[in-house]
Amino acid sequence: MPDSTPIKDAAASSPYARLEQRFRRLNALSEAQEVLHWDMSTVMPRGGHEARAEQLAELAAVHHALLTGAETGDLIAAATAETDNLNDWQRANLREITRRYVKATALSEDLVTRLSRAASACEAVWRDARAANDFKAVEPYVAELLVLVREKARAKADVLGLSLYDALLADYEPGGRSAEIDAVFGELEAFLPDFLGEVLEHQARGPGAVLPAGPFPEEKQKALGRRFMEMLGFDFHHGRLDVSLHPFCGGTPDDVRITTRYDESDFTSALMGVLHETGHAMYERGLPKDWRGQPVGHALGMSVHESQSLLVEMQVCRSRTFLDFAAPVMRETFGGEGPAWEADNLFRLYTKVERSFIRVDADEVTYPAHVILRYRLEKALIEGDMEIPDLPGAWNDGMERLLGILPPTDTLGCLQDIHWYDGAWGYFPTYTLGAMTAAQLYAAARNQNPEIEPAIGRGDFAPLMAWLRANVHGKGSFETARDLLIAATGEPLNPKVFENHLRTRYLAP
Amino acid sequence: MPDSTPIKDAAASSPYARLEQRFRRLNALSEAQEVLHWDMSTVMPRGGHEARAEQLAELAAVHHALLTGAETGDLIAAATAETDNLNDWQRANLREITRRYVKATALSEDLVTRLSRAASACEAVWRDARAANDFKAVEPYVAELLVLVREKARAKADVLGLSLYDALLADYEPGGRSAEIDAVFGELEAFLPDFLGEVLEHQARGPGAVLPAGPFPEEKQKALGRRFMEMLGFDFHHGRLDVSLHPFCGGTPDDVRITTRYDESDFTSALMGVLHETGHAMYERGLPKDWRGQPVGHALGMSVHESQSLLVEMQVCRSRTFLDFAAPVMRETFGGEGPAWEADNLFRLYTKVERSFIRVDADEVTYPAHVILRYRLEKALIEGDMEIPDLPGAWNDGMERLLGILPPTDTLGCLQDIHWYDGAWGYFPTYTLGAMTAAQLYAAARNQNPEIEPAIGRGDFAPLMAWLRANVHGKGSFETARDLLIAATGEPLNPKVFENHLRTRYLAP
Repeated sequence: MPDSTPIKDAAASSPYARLEQRFRRLNALSEAQEVLHWDMSTVMPRGGHEARAEQLAELAAVHHALLTGAETGDLIAAATAETDNLNDWQRANLREITRRYVKATALSEDLVTRLSRAASACEAVWRDARAANDFKAVEPYVAELLVLVREKARAKADVLGLSLYDALLADYEPGGRSAEIDAVFGELEAFLPDFLGEVLEHQARGPGAVLPAGPFPEEKQKALGRRFMEMLGFDFHHGRLDVSLHPFCGGTPDDVRITTRYDESDFTSALMGVLHETGHAMYERGLPKDWRGQPVGHALGMSVHESQSLLVEMQVCRSRTFLDFAAPVMRETFGGEGPAWEADNLFRLYTKVERSFIRVDADEVTYPAHVILRYRLEKALIEGDMEIPDLPGAWNDGMERLLGILPPTDTLGCLQDIHWYDGAWGYFPTYTLGAMTAAQLYAAARNQNPEIEPAIGRGDFAPLMAWLRANVHGKGSFETARDLLIAATGEPLNPKVFENHLRTRYLAP
Repeated sequence: MPDSTPIKDAAASSPYARLEQRFRRLNALSEAQEVLHWDMSTVMPRGGHEARAEQLAELAAVHHALLTGAETGDLIAAATAETDNLNDWQRANLREITRRYVKATALSEDLVTRLSRAASACEAVWRDARAANDFKAVEPYVAELLVLVREKARAKADVLGLSLYDALLADYEPGGRSAEIDAVFGELEAFLPDFLGEVLEHQARGPGAVLPAGPFPEEKQKALGRRFMEMLGFDFHHGRLDVSLHPFCGGTPDDVRITTRYDESDFTSALMGVLHETGHAMYERGLPKDWRGQPVGHALGMSVHESQSLLVEMQVCRSRTFLDFAAPVMRETFGGEGPAWEADNLFRLYTKVERSFIRVDADEVTYPAHVILRYRLEKALIEGDMEIPDLPGAWNDGMERLLGILPPTDTLGCLQDIHWYDGAWGYFPTYTLGAMTAAQLYAAARNQNPEIEPAIGRGDFAPLMAWLRANVHGKGSFETARDLLIAATGEPLNPKVFENHLRTRYLAP
């Protein structure tokens, strides 16, 4: 919890106080952008697209000008010279303010514009190329984009004193280092192929999972999702559940909006999606209220954010403990009957493992392989050890090596994800860092409070959420992900904890 | 229709071109504010209020800074010196740009802040005072607000060379003059009391109106509303229909969003509300596309905007011609039966006249009396001929004189409307100016194209909308409301046309 509150008086004139005032304004602008994005993804009629793009571009321009204005740099310099007057949270806030300023000023406006244009052009071509399984069509666009991404990496690496890859990673994972990722991914990579074989054999010996028979009306799915959300502590006075093509968690900490997409023939996927996004939402809601709108009050990087959704979804809601409680609730909601509604079967369904081509559909066991593949490839591409024309071949080789399957098309291979074609290089590892972080946090939480798991078995998430507020949510960006993890669990990221979780869940007799 | 398009090239360097660029940015910021307002009124959870207020305040601050920046004034001066190079639309755009700049710079920032605070404080007290019928409670607040409103009027009057009242009116009705309003309202005021007596007598002699019996499920009401909206030409690719406590038309010209509020025991009010807001929406959609985002491409003042909603609602949709077509559609939608569903009865229902206390519930005949009362009172208050403590008495005197009824409480009297307590002084006359403008435009349209009314009798609004696009919507702010009316109808505002409409509709045998 914060040990002091930010200075609210705008007239206060210390450089630090004026920085807080400036970043409160920047935050209001960012929040306005968030709301416009939510609107665009959920309710905006398609004909509003052009005007919305102009609104967002103008807000981005205003935000950038305010953030990178000379006054920001002057205030940072002056505040940094007076840190003796600041307490720990204020110092952490100044550190985060500085990080944002340095990041924003590392790139020339010209490069930002060229990158944005190249990414838009590439993404548009990619949509068709993916549909048509035509990597050649998008190849020149993504190659051109990569040139600019490398240029961006070089510019940021110089300013930040980081390697090329780490300079890009910093956009998503502040303080993240590829040396550490290499170590934990290397460990996982050694563990996974054999383990996967064992799991598949184990599951083949057991009974198969049966999908409950529908239809499952959207209204009932929504009511069930809301019921579980409330159980998790989601406050509809400060948030919403809506529908969008791609589920996400958006909005602002005091107005958190999650979305899902319903399939009336199968409720299981939308429901788990809602629980996943609720994990993100609880993080946003639990951020330190006294530091709302200040950089130190914001969520940490993507791996911690993803750890909160995966802790709720993967660690808790796909567990046998929770499903014992949830199975009858699901059955009653839909008026279901028969063995498909037993907790045994629902657990098998929610923990089914398969070798498959598409990352977003992958299960918990095979997912890291998808991520490790992408991490290795993007690192080689960014560092110049590989070029775009080699991508499809390298992708397919990696899939054979890591998962033992060969994608029949690039649509099912290197064309499947938007990230590279949209300019989001350096993002991929955060998914699996998040999964490992989730396992480690949940293990520590249960260790420290043995009431957490039995309570979940009764649908009571309060003990878990209290632990998360104290150890994760309420800390905002006060410390790095690494330090947060050490404080909460006693050690930095340790892939063994994740492996133990997988072994316990997937090889139980 | 515009005879030329604005200059799109941002690099173009004439002062006029740079002004266009600057106002395109201002427009994007205004549109973002519009979307945030829509969100706040329709879907935002209540707990998001504080953060939203900060977002809106920051956008207002950024907008104000960009609009009133010294560069805007310099560019206006330079562009004004070179108008020979501009065509008619560009010149009209420069005129609108100048008007906005002068308006925004007429008031000191200090006065704007004091006004905004006083209005917020007064409005909050007013909500409770209205509920408690306690004018005394709000009296000091509205008195203090009036002091600042007068100060605002003086400041603007000096800069604009207008009377105190006209200086405030200019915020809502550019080019509007109280001398003209006095003339037309005086004429109406002479006509209405006797006419109202005749109408009430006439209606008392005829059969009464019967409300069709419900319930009317919200989904069916919505489907009916959407069907009529589409008939009017509303394009759901560029707009939405939603629910809010107070119906409004918001959004932006390419993403127009109207709202309504459903009562499952009576569909007639929500339906007419939808048609009213659709009139506003069609105006926004029909604004000159080539001038999107430029001041000359925006809607004219409030009286023309209100004329478009009232033309659709009052002139067309409450007409016997339209109701002959619509009655069977309504009946089929709700599976209704019996005489309540006859066009005769629905027409009586939709044209029922009554002396009543509340403006927003008033019918077409008594509505102007409510507006004239408010206009006279606010003019006297602004010009210092009356003070706040005299308001309740003056209100009640006016109601007796104009409508022959005495409000039993201030809640049903001078506390009913938000406008004065929220700082919107000078707004009221535009409602009745809009009603008169609607009558005059519709009479001219039917005169010029005799196909318009028979087409409406078949549910075909295309001829009417084509006329409105050519004579109103497509003109944006190219000319003043007065000139637009003269061009479209051959004369300035003439209350006789409105009176004829009322006579024809309400005293028909």
